[in-house]
Amino acid sequence: MNPADHQLDLERRSRLGMVEAIWGEHKSVDQLVRILDALALAGEVILATRISADKAAAVQTLLSTAAVRYDADARCLVSATLPAADRALGAVIIVGGGSSDLPVAAEARLSLQAHGVEAELMLDVGVAGLHRLLSRLEQLHGARVLIACAGMEGALPTVLAGLLPQPVIGVPVSVGYGVSAGGQAALHGMLASCAPGLTVVNIDNGYGAAMAALRILNNRLSSGAAGGA
Amino acid sequence: MNPADHQLDLERRSRLGMVEAIWGEHKSVDQLVRILDALALAGEVILATRISADKAAAVQTLLSTAAVRYDADARCLVSATLPAADRALGAVIIVGGGSSDLPVAAEARLSLQAHGVEAELMLDVGVAGLHRLLSRLEQLHGARVLIACAGMEGALPTVLAGLLPQPVIGVPVSVGYGVSAGGQAALHGMLASCAPGLTVVNIDNGYGAAMAALRILNNRLSSGAAGGA
Amino acid sequence: MNPADHQLDLERRSRLGMVEAIWGEHKSVDQLVRILDALALAGEVILATRISADKAAAVQTLLSTAAVRYDADARCLVSATLPAADRALGAVIIVGGGSSDLPVAAEARLSLQAHGVEAELMLDVGVAGLHRLLSRLEQLHGARVLIACAGMEGALPTVLAGLLPQPVIGVPVSVGYGVSAGGQAALHGMLASCAPGLTVVNIDNGYGAAMAALRILNNRLSSGAAGGA
Amino acid sequence: MNPADHQLDLERRSRLGMVEAIWGEHKSVDQLVRILDALALAGEVILATRISADKAAAVQTLLSTAAVRYDADARCLVSATLPAADRALGAVIIVGGGSSDLPVAAEARLSLQAHGVEAELMLDVGVAGLHRLLSRLEQLHGARVLIACAGMEGALPTVLAGLLPQPVIGVPVSVGYGVSAGGQAALHGMLASCAPGLTVVNIDNGYGAAMAALRILNNRLSSGAAGGA
Amino acid sequence: MNPADHQLDLERRSRLGMVEAIWGEHKSVDQLVRILDALALAGEVILATRISADKAAAVQTLLSTAAVRYDADARCLVSATLPAADRALGAVIIVGGGSSDLPVAAEARLSLQAHGVEAELMLDVGVAGLHRLLSRLEQLHGARVLIACAGMEGALPTVLAGLLPQPVIGVPVSVGYGVSAGGQAALHGMLASCAPGLTVVNIDNGYGAAMAALRILNNRLSSGAAGGA
Amino acid sequence: MNPADHQLDLERRSRLGMVEAIWGEHKSVDQLVRILDALALAGEVILATRISADKAAAVQTLLSTAAVRYDADARCLVSATLPAADRALGAVIIVGGGSSDLPVAAEARLSLQAHGVEAELMLDVGVAGLHRLLSRLEQLHGARVLIACAGMEGALPTVLAGLLPQPVIGVPVSVGYGVSAGGQAALHGMLASCAPGLTVVNIDNGYGAAMAALRILNNRLSSGAAGGA
Amino acid sequence: MNPADHQLDLERRSRLGMVEAIWGEHKSVDQLVRILDALALAGEVILATRISADKAAAVQTLLSTAAVRYDADARCLVSATLPAADRALGAVIIVGGGSSDLPVAAEARLSLQAHGVEAELMLDVGVAGLHRLLSRLEQLHGARVLIACAGMEGALPTVLAGLLPQPVIGVPVSVGYGVSAGGQAALHGMLASCAPGLTVVNIDNGYGAAMAALRILNNRLSSGAAGGA
Amino acid sequence: MNPADHQLDLERRSRLGMVEAIWGEHKSVDQLVRILDALALAGEVILATRISADKAAAVQTLLSTAAVRYDADARCLVSATLPAADRALGAVIIVGGGSSDLPVAAEARLSLQAHGVEAELMLDVGVAGLHRLLSRLEQLHGARVLIACAGMEGALPTVLAGLLPQPVIGVPVSVGYGVSAGGQAALHGMLASCAPGLTVVNIDNGYGAAMAALRILNNRLSSGAAGGA
Repeated sequence: MNPADHQLDLERRSRLGMVEAIWGEHKSVDQLVRILDALALAGEVILATRISADKAAAVQTLLSTAAVRYDADARCLVSATLPAADRALGAVIIVGGGSSDLPVAAEARLSLQAHGVEAELMLDVGVAGLHRLLSRLEQLHGARVLIACAGMEGALPTVLAGLLPQPVIGVPVSVGYGVSAGGQAALHGMLASCAPGLTVVNIDNGYGAAMAALRILNNRLSSGAAGGA
Repeated sequence: MNPADHQLDLERRSRLGMVEAIWGEHKSVDQLVRILDALALAGEVILATRISADKAAAVQTLLSTAAVRYDADARCLVSATLPAADRALGAVIIVGGGSSDLPVAAEARLSLQAHGVEAELMLDVGVAGLHRLLSRLEQLHGARVLIACAGMEGALPTVLAGLLPQPVIGVPVSVGYGVSAGGQAALHGMLASCAPGLTVVNIDNGYGAAMAALRILNNRLSSGAAGGA
Repeated sequence: MNPADHQLDLERRSRLGMVEAIWGEHKSVDQLVRILDALALAGEVILATRISADKAAAVQTLLSTAAVRYDADARCLVSATLPAADRALGAVIIVGGGSSDLPVAAEARLSLQAHGVEAELMLDVGVAGLHRLLSRLEQLHGARVLIACAGMEGALPTVLAGLLPQPVIGVPVSVGYGVSAGGQAALHGMLASCAPGLTVVNIDNGYGAAMAALRILNNRLSSGAAGGA
Repeated sequence: MNPADHQLDLERRSRLGMVEAIWGEHKSVDQLVRILDALALAGEVILATRISADKAAAVQTLLSTAAVRYDADARCLVSATLPAADRALGAVIIVGGGSSDLPVAAEARLSLQAHGVEAELMLDVGVAGLHRLLSRLEQLHGARVLIACAGMEGALPTVLAGLLPQPVIGVPVSVGYGVSAGGQAALHGMLASCAPGLTVVNIDNGYGAAMAALRILNNRLSSGAAGGA
Repeated sequence: MNPADHQLDLERRSRLGMVEAIWGEHKSVDQLVRILDALALAGEVILATRISADKAAAVQTLLSTAAVRYDADARCLVSATLPAADRALGAVIIVGGGSSDLPVAAEARLSLQAHGVEAELMLDVGVAGLHRLLSRLEQLHGARVLIACAGMEGALPTVLAGLLPQPVIGVPVSVGYGVSAGGQAALHGMLASCAPGLTVVNIDNGYGAAMAALRILNNRLSSGAAGGA
Repeated sequence: MNPADHQLDLERRSRLGMVEAIWGEHKSVDQLVRILDALALAGEVILATRISADKAAAVQTLLSTAAVRYDADARCLVSATLPAADRALGAVIIVGGGSSDLPVAAEARLSLQAHGVEAELMLDVGVAGLHRLLSRLEQLHGARVLIACAGMEGALPTVLAGLLPQPVIGVPVSVGYGVSAGGQAALHGMLASCAPGLTVVNIDNGYGAAMAALRILNNRLSSGAAGGA
Repeated sequence: MNPADHQLDLERRSRLGMVEAIWGEHKSVDQLVRILDALALAGEVILATRISADKAAAVQTLLSTAAVRYDADARCLVSATLPAADRALGAVIIVGGGSSDLPVAAEARLSLQAHGVEAELMLDVGVAGLHRLLSRLEQLHGARVLIACAGMEGALPTVLAGLLPQPVIGVPVSVGYGVSAGGQAALHGMLASCAPGLTVVNIDNGYGAAMAALRILNNRLSSGAAGGA
Repeated sequence: MNPADHQLDLERRSRLGMVEAIWGEHKSVDQLVRILDALALAGEVILATRISADKAAAVQTLLSTAAVRYDADARCLVSATLPAADRALGAVIIVGGGSSDLPVAAEARLSLQAHGVEAELMLDVGVAGLHRLLSRLEQLHGARVLIACAGMEGALPTVLAGLLPQPVIGVPVSVGYGVSAGGQAALHGMLASCAPGLTVVNIDNGYGAAMAALRILNNRLSSGAAGGA
């Protein structure tokens, strides 16, 4: 067997309640085809992130299955049919300041949808015009978890976490220039936040924020019995 | 009125479900006395963090109330009487690799206890001797949220989040030297983690990790009705 | 003559409209005494910054003049009698989030007062509780220039500059820990701000922010004639 | 509606006295066309920055309006007809050391012109040949605000602010190599400046420097009545 | 003679027991052809690293010898015939977490094989699923030296060195994004490791790790006589 | 039991062939006393590093055993009686450039001696006067492993590894100022070394270098039988 | 006149004894043509650095003069006829470790030749094989100034300055990967050098090192009279 | 013999024309006494840098010789009798912006005087008031080498090297705060300088700048014969 092949961690769903997402950025078309075919064969949900449109098309041509579609906003290859949303889990709202946050926010949304979680985007609530955010507070109160994506100075999660009581997961976005190039200023701004209880994931890690939200949502159900005991 | 006085945010409990902790590190004894007396007068739970034993003693001498005790492990001044733990919320386990993580872990535990959350420490499960961690997995499964404190390379939260399905909040600890001085290596290690859904707070921010855990615990109850609707 | 003596730049007032402030941090008591005595002899306003209470007391004991007082909030030695505020210049409001910003904010206020500018502090408007800031907008509209001091993630100047049309000068404050230690996160957050037209000075540079405000205030008058021509 | 669409902040003019510039760097041709058409429909001045010549041509082909031109120096798409300069506001001079500063300086000039401000470039006054700068001091005295662009070590704004009393806004330019690659050395040099009252914006942020200058110029007029009261 | 030509260090084998590898990344096709022909002429083993497939093909076309093949996994040009493995030296196992580590791990393996060392890859033992690593411990015990390649947070060498007594050489891999971009987080995680006796080489330096392993393997033999005395 | 107590990893010797060293820097006198007494009770060799003379004296006063001495050069508390050197293991030479490297080099020597390894210091062979190093080459050839300590630019391990075939472990030393403050320049210089097969440990980590050497020395013997099979 | 045009500093020769080199990296073909034609018209020596072969060809096609040639090693456009070497100035030797240092070393040599200085390259004396350097010491003694180019860990100038009494100017070269990517490790290694009196220029700044050498060579002659007085 | 003792490099004078300065910062009183006594015994000039007044007094009490004095400005212990200045070497002027540069500048001056070089300080010529510098140009022309010390943004050496043709050696000074803390901004500003031929030494390295100047001065004489040939 080729030692460079990806060994799928198919036990991940039973251990952690998650499917194993494939990080596509550094993988070749051939590697991706082998991995996705194996996942399809195992009957597992497919989610491969960080894939350009060109690479996606090349992969789709070679796949044994047609049940994989490309989501251009999220830059992911994903099972054409995802599980229906389990509304008892509650919903996640993914907040951002503008169209530059779209790829990261859409990756988070799709990652949640691949696990049967209801998720929606709200991408026009940056802190440079607070009125747009303040007018949406009631809607935001309705979500069980908030994921806040922000580039530049990354102040949006801080403002949100100062206004709302839910779990808020900050995702720094690598959009910016000068001191904000690569997302470092946003990352540090979120970690240094004066708002209590804001947590943070790596820059551009929409998938990771979704999995953190999933841990929170699942946690409520899985420990329901224990908690009630 | 002295413009430098701290303006208490007494609405925080109703808005966010949290009391306002006082960050004591840069405050003078006089400032702390004024603030803690005001909190006591307002009947609010007192939690003042990052206070040395000497400064705490000086503050206690000057306070109008005797109902404040010093917790030397957590380096906090705290109400002598804290709310009883609400077991329906579930418990938080705070994990660490050794005695160097104690101040941060104890700050997290005390911050949770100040909000009526059951919390316990487990400080001997570093990754350099995995057997100690693996023998505790069942106990760890029982917690609703895990807070993992680690200095040095900060690998503990990664290992935990690869083994367990709950929310895991990583707290980098500023213990180390050379490249790990100040906790930067641990912080970056946690953010870069290959384990899905690990979230992170600022270095040494035990209080912040506790508040993030509290958001998760409260979230379950407060949205229980909505989720069930 | 001692080549290490400070050569006063007494022409600075005519060239730039400013007195020369003495940066006291690295100067010995003897150096400060020589410099302040020379300024007093020249009839110039005295402003020496970054001086501890102990060093200030030692300097005051040795000075030839008694007309110098110590401002403990601003940590400055300053002429006991400052010029009256010239109200035609308009006022500056110095905004901050808490008592930790006091030394920097007070240095800015005192530096403006030493040049005959009306200046006031507003230190309870952090972004973790936006309601306090939003309730003060009208008062803030009345200032000609806003100086916004912030440590931690430094989001306050961004929020201000998104709400108000005046010049806003951000001053990062070296209060924080972990990624915000030393004020770097606040500095980068301000430079990366998504709010248009926010400018920034060095960390803790209350004096510099004041001089930038003074350039703006003086500018209006000095070019008044030209502008009206 | 497409959640990734840019939500225009058309209230910005009334709130801040500025039009909303569109940061074009990370936007697709389609996104830009939709946004610029919406702005044209709303009758607003158009200013879209950081756009390559190729992308600009593609956008212009698809726009519904012909009233948008490309400024190759500033790398901006801008309304073909800009407001006439309001000379009562006074003029801004944008200073630089050489042709490498042109894109940033021209972005600042165009941003000011889009708001009816008289602005001119002076790009041959670097500090390696001080005589060129010293011979222009009188001309520089005539401006109400100076914007100083510099890459490499970024010393130009320091020298200017030591010689002239007006507001000086430093713009670090990302031209350089080694330690000056990306503009960090210039940024730090400006922030660390020994000249009093110099303020700084993010690297390459010509638009931001222009908006800071606009706040200063507008400030004079808008508060004129109040100041005279 | 052209002063820019590479001067081969043909004495390296006698001095250090190593052939001189050619670092191909910054060399032109012409430079590589001249160097490899010279090595072939001297009868030395050829190992040229960091060479893209295209450059390799161009070099092979121009070489005077056909006895050089391209190893696409390791991105190296290498003598078609390598010395037989000397089993008395013992074996090296090169461990990694996934297919992204392949280029670095394969460079290490090939570098060892070029010196007659038995080496094998084990690339599916990442720490996010510890069970895969724990099930291989016996196999790992059989190696004389372990080379552990890891990107992201780089925790794998720490876990290995806590479980196994052999020399463990960590190789950070420049695979990641955000804080792990370029391999810095993995590097610092390995240096900061709480596992005793882990050593580290530069990011992506598979060749260097192999040479460190070779020094250890050779050392055993060369000092055998002395040790037995 | 106090959860902050150190849980000794007494199995470390059987698993890794090492005793567990106690990192004393952040531990209180009380914590150290408890730990060292427990180790003494278990009959284990004691090695506690990074302990000042004052703290050591306080600990020694409180210990139940007198069999612990303080090594001022290495700043360690250590069993008064160490195992005899096992000459069959071969010797380690610890090289440095001057007296500033002494604490780190002595920590490495003592850590080896605590495991029965012969180790000696050679601290006058800096690269600014190469003749001293070149005159010692024969002596250096006699060691099985070389540990090279260097602050400043850290070039010594590079020069050694270019001249000698043994394993060379570089230890950056946090002696320096400006760019070499904290040992970063030395660390990077060693990692970037052009000498093949040099490995590196964290700054000032004399203990870690010793354990890496021990892994190499033990490895030879423990795999001797297997190698011969 | 186009304000973006380069204003030539033709007085530089009389003021500093240097011609003004044109930094070609960020300049367009049109800008370079205008500048080089102006220099040719002024009868000045032409030296334009950091120019790719393609850009050079495009410029040469458009130039009014044919007296400009392209030096591919140095990546410079330069006057076809340079001044004869003035041997009374003495010679400069430019040292490096390998062919990767060639572009920087050749830029230094050409910059010296453009000022009538004798300069030669010696590019095979890296520190990983000291014998090559030690065998050339006599030749190196003959130079008046040494320029030492080095990437990776940058130890070469340190070794040289420890062996030879002349002025040694270190030039870090941006060749490397991992911690040496971009030349930072080499830069810091040279600045931190334990060899007394080594000076350093920016990464890859071959031209700057040449001008520093020229200041030293010229200095000898220009102050000759004064020195003899 | 104690292996930690400093091995004096007494051949340095013959090899490099320099005495070996003792870097006193990390050395104990005992180590210094042993070293200085050995130098005195060898009849060598004594120069020990970075020594506090208290440590100096303790050393002087224990020295066998009284011929060592403490220079408080330079913070050095130095031979009471230094060689007479050799005027044929020419003079060095050490320039700075203020009294904060004194310790570094004085260390440079004393280091030159210890080698028989005439050196003087000029510490009032900062770039925030250029007139003071411009009025001294003629005096500065008289020096053979200029050493320019600067903290903050470090622009002084750039301005000098643009105005004067001599060798200019920049010494960044670790005076500042925020981005200039530790001297990094000054260091990068000097390396990134747009002035041709400026060289730089490590932060605060007055001794190194002096030795670089000495290499230049000596160079003139030692190669005088060759140059005249």
